[in-house]
Formats: sequence, structure tokens, C-alpha cells
Amino acid sequence: MYMRKVAIIGAGITKFGELWDKSLRELFVEAALKAVDDANVDLKEIQALYVGSMSPGLFAQQEHIAPLMADYLGLTGIPATRTEGACASGGLAFLRGVMDVMSGLHDIVLVGGVEKMTDVTTERCTYILATASDQEYEAFHGLTFVGEYALMARRHMYQYGTTKEQMAMVAVKNHRNAVKNPHAHLRREVTLETCLASPMIAEPLQLFDCSLVSDGAAAAIICPLEIAKKFTDTPILVAGFGQATESMATHDREDITKLRSTIWASQKAYKMAGVEPKDIDLAEVHDCFTIAEIMAYEDLGFCKKGEGGKLVEEGETEIGGKIPVNTSGGLKAKGHPVGATGVAQIHEIVLQLRGEAGERQVEGAELGLTHNIGGSGGTCVVTILKRL
Amino acid sequence: MYMRKVAIIGAGITKFGELWDKSLRELFVEAALKAVDDANVDLKEIQALYVGSMSPGLFAQQEHIAPLMADYLGLTGIPATRTEGACASGGLAFLRGVMDVMSGLHDIVLVGGVEKMTDVTTERCTYILATASDQEYEAFHGLTFVGEYALMARRHMYQYGTTKEQMAMVAVKNHRNAVKNPHAHLRREVTLETCLASPMIAEPLQLFDCSLVSDGAAAAIICPLEIAKKFTDTPILVAGFGQATESMATHDREDITKLRSTIWASQKAYKMAGVEPKDIDLAEVHDCFTIAEIMAYEDLGFCKKGEGGKLVEEGETEIGGKIPVNTSGGLKAKGHPVGATGVAQIHEIVLQLRGEAGERQVEGAELGLTHNIGGSGGTCVVTILKRL
Repeated sequence: MYMRKVAIIGAGITKFGELWDKSLRELFVEAALKAVDDANVDLKEIQALYVGSMSPGLFAQQEHIAPLMADYLGLTGIPATRTEGACASGGLAFLRGVMDVMSGLHDIVLVGGVEKMTDVTTERCTYILATASDQEYEAFHGLTFVGEYALMARRHMYQYGTTKEQMAMVAVKNHRNAVKNPHAHLRREVTLETCLASPMIAEPLQLFDCSLVSDGAAAAIICPLEIAKKFTDTPILVAGFGQATESMATHDREDITKLRSTIWASQKAYKMAGVEPKDIDLAEVHDCFTIAEIMAYEDLGFCKKGEGGKLVEEGETEIGGKIPVNTSGGLKAKGHPVGATGVAQIHEIVLQLRGEAGERQVEGAELGLTHNIGGSGGTCVVTILKRL
Repeated sequence: MYMRKVAIIGAGITKFGELWDKSLRELFVEAALKAVDDANVDLKEIQALYVGSMSPGLFAQQEHIAPLMADYLGLTGIPATRTEGACASGGLAFLRGVMDVMSGLHDIVLVGGVEKMTDVTTERCTYILATASDQEYEAFHGLTFVGEYALMARRHMYQYGTTKEQMAMVAVKNHRNAVKNPHAHLRREVTLETCLASPMIAEPLQLFDCSLVSDGAAAAIICPLEIAKKFTDTPILVAGFGQATESMATHDREDITKLRSTIWASQKAYKMAGVEPKDIDLAEVHDCFTIAEIMAYEDLGFCKKGEGGKLVEEGETEIGGKIPVNTSGGLKAKGHPVGATGVAQIHEIVLQLRGEAGERQVEGAELGLTHNIGGSGGTCVVTILKRL
């Protein structure tokens, strides 16, 4: 079966943060228009829209946001579809856009993600995020997201000797990178001591092991590869992708030190792209908690199982290391407006592969990977992007 | 561009109604397994899942339902994606599944829709449904869904002389059809007098002008046409489809007696299928309110603008008429679990085109149409299905 190859010709992102003066629709429109400008397309050339968002209904009392965004972009009429897969909603939107172009239906497609999280209280936010786990068997009994990852962290420490210091090193690295990212939510360095002295949230995870609650949006413009050069000299090829699911409830898993959804999704993506983990030059991974980044190293094949802690400790995931991870600052410091995250990861890799990442540029990056997780691993989307 | 043709090889549906003894996941799994049985596929052959649902977050405190449903079907691992477009969420899921197969990525795909609406109070339900309109400019100021359609009805009456009797005739017809549908929520006939004597909800719409609040799910199995005969002697071709958006807020529209999303989506679908409105043998249209069915007749091209009232009055949309509409009983009497509706419409047309619709069979039906609306018209999905 012939499938059209798909390229990214533009990307845009808002500042991430507590953006109380901007509404859900304003955030999305801002990111989308930046992507349109970046792609050098005329707004009227956009033929379809995909928007990822986890819970605009619970966060902002607004469902049905895809036609709303089309409308506010002046694109009333075009097909507009929302996808939802908790914190992987953005990744799902990106893949649906890619499939749409692959199918031959549309040529120029806008994909994006958005979330407006800071208009609710912390307690309410914790409740809303827990709707991404198995409500009846987990959330109902009081298991929050940080609780789920705390269980994974404790088991990982027990099974592989991973240390709290190694987890804190993920936070230190990602904060250091975020200083160089003008769109990041928290642009300040933190020390290992600060992390280890921070308040306990769900043992063994402390405050600095947790990603941020942010508002923000990100967007990208995609089209068939064969017409991409009309718009840009530096199209970025969607070389491979994979999507997979894991048992919804963590208690249904044989082993909670890994996410099978990450393993399966990345295997599909590597196969489609015809590459191996060692070929990847840099990655944006889903560090909703520091332990999640360590598990991602392993599940994506950047190191052997159980050696993720060592990988960060040895500096291999720093800019300049063997496989730089989360050059943007990651969910930990760039911020994590959940529906936007998957597309924000795409944005970072696009900048890096074009050589436009400024102070945080990974020299000579040709092949980048994104890894977007929903919930405690129920959904995983992996993409492999390539400089041509 | 070559695009694979897609066929429906199986469909399943639950009883619609106030199903207090069944949870969200149970409803979806029941419909999905019925579709799997009907398609004669092995469960393990399913490669991807699309689930449409409007607001499991607000109705049932559960987001991230796609991996949950994959998990409960014993399909942990497969890509599973939720789509949302208010009451058109099911239609969106169906189209994403079709695009997935068209793209060549997957061969056997499960698509479905589900909603569990009756576990919340009526007031809460009204609030939740209003999140499908423009929250900040409509719902916030007290405009409910029935209020929106009441404005459309009043204007349609003023502009075209449509009568309350004609609207009530839609309800009478759909209730009559529902008696013959074992899965329908309300299986009883109503008289014109009952309708016209029913309580006023939002003038001029009375209780019997309004569709039902229901629990339920529907599902279908699709695959490339070239392998469909392996599974069934009666594959149903997805001959055409279209998706479009309309201004989110009704006050932004030039004319509220029509939905441009319906006009644009159906024009695309007719063009793709190479047919005209007069070729359609029967249709399932989105009769969330009786006026919506009358507007759909017109916007889909079954009659001229303004003559929808006359079409139902003359009996042309009855079984046995020129263009039978809502043989299932429609949203009015079959019921309207919002996320399930788009796929339930597909289910009805599949039965009819196969000649398996029992007492409500439209003789010799070869070409059927579904019309699924989100919100007050913000999203529209139209499909044209064909017996081969």
C-alpha cells in the first residue's frame, strides 16, 4: 500500500505559564497563527484542523473546541476534530493530522494542542488529572497521578537500585535547559540540594520530581512531502510514528517499572523510520515525573532496563551528551499544559533539526524523537522526525 | 492520489435508555463485541480503535476512555483514540477510522461511540450539553441547547411559514418508527394532539419537539473493501463522506434557518460518492429537535429551502415515502446518548442496506445517508453508504 510521506513545514508555540490574561481560544489561536506564519502558508490554504486537549470541559467548561478554534481562526467551514488521550491528546492530534494527509484527503493540515489549567484550584486540578486514570478502580479510592508514579518510582528503586539523587538529576538538567528556552514556564536553575530538600508529595516523589501545571498551546502545519519545498527550504520529515495502549489501571500490569505502551509505540516508530535507538540524536520525552523520564530512557531503548538512573547520572542526556533529552526543559521546567505537550515536543524537535534552537542547540542533530504519554501510560505516541 | 476504498463489515448497538445498571465501559464493550460478532472477525484481528464520546469527564468523571475500552475488550496494546465534537463525536470517530484504513496504516478497525448521561441530574445534564455551545458568549448568559434551536424554529416559522403541527409530525413519525426498533429508548406511538399539548420547554419548542437523554453505545467494524468479502457476503461501502464546521455561536451566523456545516459536509459527501440527493433511498438525520430534522431535509437537498415542513406533512419522509428519514426512531424516540449517535445512525443504515431492518425495512434500499450534528451545528459529519 502506497502511503504519502508527510512533512512538517511550520511550528508555533505560546509562552507556557500561569497565563491568567489569556483564554483557551486565545492561546490556541496564538500558537496556530505562529505556525501559519512559520510555514509561510496562507491561512486560507489550511484544509483541516486537529486539536488535542485533555479536558476543556472540566478545566474551562467548554467542550466542542475544534469548531470553536476553526471559527476564531477565520476558518469556519473546514473539518475540525478534537482528539483526547489525557496528556497524550496533542500527540494524538498530530498523528490524526498525519493520517489525514497520508490518506490523500487533505494537503495542508493544522495540528495543535492546548490546555488552560490554572483557572481552577489545585485540588480541582488534581481531581481533573485523575480522570485520566481508571476512575472506578484508582481515582475513586484516592490514588492520584503523583501517587501512581510514586509506586512506579519505589518499585524501580527496589528493583534496579535507582536513587532519589538520580531522579533529582533529571529535574536539575531540565531546569538548566529551560533557562535557554524563552517559552518555558520556569526559567531558573535548581540545585540537587534544593530538589532533595523540597516538600514530599507522594513518597518517594518530592515537589521537584513533579512537572508543572501550566497554560499554553502549540501548533504545527503539515503537508505531503512532495509539496513541502514550495513552502520551506527546511521541511522536517515525519519519518516514523507509533501509537499504543497499556493497561489503564496500574494494578493490571505485570511490571510497573516499564510502560509497554512506550515499548510498543517506539518499536513501531523505529521500524517505520528504519532506524534504531542509537541513531536518535535527541529526544523530547514525557517527564511528567522525574521517574517517568528515567523509565522512558529504558523503554525507548536509549539504555538497558534498569540503567536509566545511571544514564542521567553520567550526563549522557545533557546537551552535549550521547543522547540529549528534553532540551526544551521538558514538562518539568518548560511546563505541561497537558493537551499542548505532545505538539510542544514536536515544536522543539523541529527547531532543533532546523538548527534554530539557539543557546540550547544540539549540534548536527538530524534525527529526533518525541515521546508523549497519556495518564499513567494508558496511551503512548512516539514520533521520529528527520532533517532532510 | 490513490485512496483505499473502505467497507463496513459489522455493526452492533446496545439498547438505548436509562441504563442505570450498566457503566460506561460495559455499554461500550457490549456494542463493540456485538459488532465483532456481526463482522465475523476474531477480536484479536482488530488493529486500532476509535471511540467517540462527548463528555465522559463531565458525565462520568472519566477522561482517557479509549485505552480503557481497549483494555476492557482485551485489546491492550492497540492504538486507541477518542474523538470529541459534542453530539457529532461518534461521526468523527467513524471518519477517523475510515481515514486510518484509507491511509493504509491498519486494515481492521473498530469504531464506536458511547455516552452515559442518566447518572447526573437534569440540571447538570443541561449544563453539560451547553458546554458544546460557545460557553463564554452563549451558555454563560443562560442560552441552553433547546433555547438555541427554539430561536432557529421561530425564525424558520417566520421566514417559511413552518408550523408547530409540522414540527410535531416529525415526532409522531419518529415515535411510530421506534416502535419497530427493539433497541429504541421510547417504543410507543404518540399522537399529534399529545405533542401539541405537551409542556412548553423553550417557545415554540415543546417537550415532544425534544430528543431524549439516554445511555447507550454503538460500534462498527471497517476494513479495506478488497478484503471485506472474506468476512461477509454483504459489505457496505463507505461511498462518500464529508465533515464541516459552522460558526460556533449562533449569533455569528447570517442565517439561522440553515446550517452551513450540513450543506458543506453533504456537498462533499455527494461529490465523493458521485450521487445526488435524489439518489438517496433513506437517511438517518440529526433530529435533536424536530426543527433540526426539518432543516436537515432542506440543507441535505431532499427538498427546497423552506419546504421541509411540507415534506414531512406530505408523508414523504415516512417509511414508504419518497425519502424515509429516521427509520430507527431517530434521536427523538430511539434516543440520543450523544457520543453514540453518529455510529448508531451508521448501524441503522447498515441494517437497512443489508435488508435486515425487520418491520421497519425500506424495500430495495441501496444508498443510505447519515447526518450527525455537534452542538448547534458547529460540527457536521455526513456519510453515504452503499449496498454492493
